[in-house]
Amino acid sequence: MSRGRRPGETRTRDAILAAARERFARDGYDRTTIRGVAADAGVDPALVMHFFPAKEELFTAVIDLPEDVELAIERALHGDPGRLGERLMRMFVDVWEDPVTGPRMIGLLRSAASYDAAAARLRDVFDARILRRFAEVSHDDLRSDLVSSQLVGVAMLRYVLRIEPLASAEREALIAAVAPTLQRYFTGAIE
Amino acid sequence: MSRGRRPGETRTRDAILAAARERFARDGYDRTTIRGVAADAGVDPALVMHFFPAKEELFTAVIDLPEDVELAIERALHGDPGRLGERLMRMFVDVWEDPVTGPRMIGLLRSAASYDAAAARLRDVFDARILRRFAEVSHDDLRSDLVSSQLVGVAMLRYVLRIEPLASAEREALIAAVAPTLQRYFTGAIE
Repeated sequence: MSRGRRPGETRTRDAILAAARERFARDGYDRTTIRGVAADAGVDPALVMHFFPAKEELFTAVIDLPEDVELAIERALHGDPGRLGERLMRMFVDVWEDPVTGPRMIGLLRSAASYDAAAARLRDVFDARILRRFAEVSHDDLRSDLVSSQLVGVAMLRYVLRIEPLASAEREALIAAVAPTLQRYFTGAIE
Repeated sequence: MSRGRRPGETRTRDAILAAARERFARDGYDRTTIRGVAADAGVDPALVMHFFPAKEELFTAVIDLPEDVELAIERALHGDPGRLGERLMRMFVDVWEDPVTGPRMIGLLRSAASYDAAAARLRDVFDARILRRFAEVSHDDLRSDLVSSQLVGVAMLRYVLRIEPLASAEREALIAAVAPTLQRYFTGAIE
């Protein structure tokens, strides 16, 4: 994302993204404007448009997966195929419970559920960054979707809705309960 | 809900609920007003308040689970415990693919993900109507949450985000893939 940019540019871009993230979450996609985001970030609208020519690009950048998460997924997918489910579930809990990444992931999931106008872009990001990688490992797109369905469901109940006792379940108990599901979707019988 | 009411009252109440459902979905919880809902339903705000004394009650009625769904859950939970996962998954697909119930369930899930102010009420409904019934069968609240997590995840990917190939997967293939997960969460080893 910010590779190859000067530090000042990166800081400005990050400030714009932070303001946009807040606006989209609070006002929804339709009501968010470049002008409003620029005001919140304390910059000129033209500067926002220098980085993001249109609201659509701004939104895509906001919902893009944090780089750390991509790397974490990459690491989890490598290693003993028989323990793939466990590694992935452990990575998942780490990412969602990280004080920086967690709230961003929650925002991303909420956006995914609520912005009609942007659903197609969200699907693209989800598809390119997560599902395609899962499918390279499972060699099957349906398996890859099933893995995601279980992870998205845990994220919704544990981190977004905070439903008990799942929200307070011990990490290791959660990993032990869900890892075999992921493992079966990746490598077991599904028909 | 409408039990014991005269047909005219039921029709009015249903019209108010339909208008409210639309407003909450479009404008979010905070921006929706009793006055606006009354205008959309073509009735006086006092009449809305006759049925629903405050916005909170209106919202609770909107997000309440359709009666048919409660009955369908009840039916799925009865019978051979060894095929519980399959019955529940079959019921789930029926409910979400029903032309009337399906769109209401999608609205409910979107609300659940996006309305911060109303998240507590949503948890209550979800807890009283679904999780408590699952827990009576599984004799364990964490198991019950795990079952829900898988169902909510499939609902998000297949019906809300419409991610392929899960969105177009054959009913029976989907049931065959997911039923064993639900069955294990209900009755299998989870640690």
